[in-house]
Amino acid sequence: MEKISTLTIEEKEYFMKEAIKEAKKAELIAEVPIGAVVVLNGEIIGRGHNLRETSQNATAHAEMMAIQQACARLDNFRLEDTQLFVTLEPCPMCSGAILLSRIDEVYFGAYDPKGGTAGSLLNLLEDQRFNHWCYLESRVLEEECSQLLKTFFKALRQRKKADKQKEKENSEKD
Amino acid sequence: MEKISTLTIEEKEYFMKEAIKEAKKAELIAEVPIGAVVVLNGEIIGRGHNLRETSQNATAHAEMMAIQQACARLDNFRLEDTQLFVTLEPCPMCSGAILLSRIDEVYFGAYDPKGGTAGSLLNLLEDQRFNHWCYLESRVLEEECSQLLKTFFKALRQRKKADKQKEKENSEKD
Repeated sequence: MEKISTLTIEEKEYFMKEAIKEAKKAELIAEVPIGAVVVLNGEIIGRGHNLRETSQNATAHAEMMAIQQACARLDNFRLEDTQLFVTLEPCPMCSGAILLSRIDEVYFGAYDPKGGTAGSLLNLLEDQRFNHWCYLESRVLEEECSQLLKTFFKALRQRKKADKQKEKENSEKD
Repeated sequence: MEKISTLTIEEKEYFMKEAIKEAKKAELIAEVPIGAVVVLNGEIIGRGHNLRETSQNATAHAEMMAIQQACARLDNFRLEDTQLFVTLEPCPMCSGAILLSRIDEVYFGAYDPKGGTAGSLLNLLEDQRFNHWCYLESRVLEEECSQLLKTFFKALRQRKKADKQKEKENSEKD
């Protein structure tokens, strides 16, 4: 059974911008900038950003935070008729959580060729052997979502290089 | 690179029994009886049982609970050198969380042919395209793990049938 999108281009871009705002919150606290929102009837019912380092919790991905907030808001583990927006292609854990919570439509920004399971390594979200599957759309505001990550990792590499240089200088002084 | 088991048969059965104890806690509160434990150096550092209905949270699976407790206990999202025991084959979400938390060895009891991703529909845990993979062993105390689920679903079907019968009788009275 084919699933379809229920949103206009304007709505998709509006909600992806909200996911990007979440990603920027992660960036501010030195987390990999990934953000997500869950939408029901045009209203955001769950928001989340990556908190893996801050919380030292392996499961604290943006999508998980947004899904948990939405479940709490509706007091229901079934998020039927909702849309999820996330800046990066979901990993296996988040793809699984999307299926379990029965989210109907998933929109992501940038592909994650090394770990994504919504088209890159696998496509869990459209695999009809599971008891739920989604409408899936990629590359929504892709450039902006991708640029956030590129900038973050470039700065991280530069910081690491500078730290190494300092370490080298200090050891030469000794 | 081949991963190996670091446990004896006795240890495997001991820890699976602990996972079964967790599953029974779920059963007591009318949740599908699935339980899990995370082990480090012979000590249980995380326990969990399915809480989906009670919490109305789609992500409240036994493995997620156990992993989150272990991360909190170690204050580290990396659960290196640990083993996870779970009574039922993990779903995509839990398989993903196992990979993200870098658990080294995974032991499960019963296969889940309709949704399992540790051998049934997919094998996420041994897929070397991801940046982590596991030693994987199935059928540990399989009969006991499987029986728990069968008994639970049989009782559920009987309850539903009885409810339907009562409803029918009531409507005939009207």
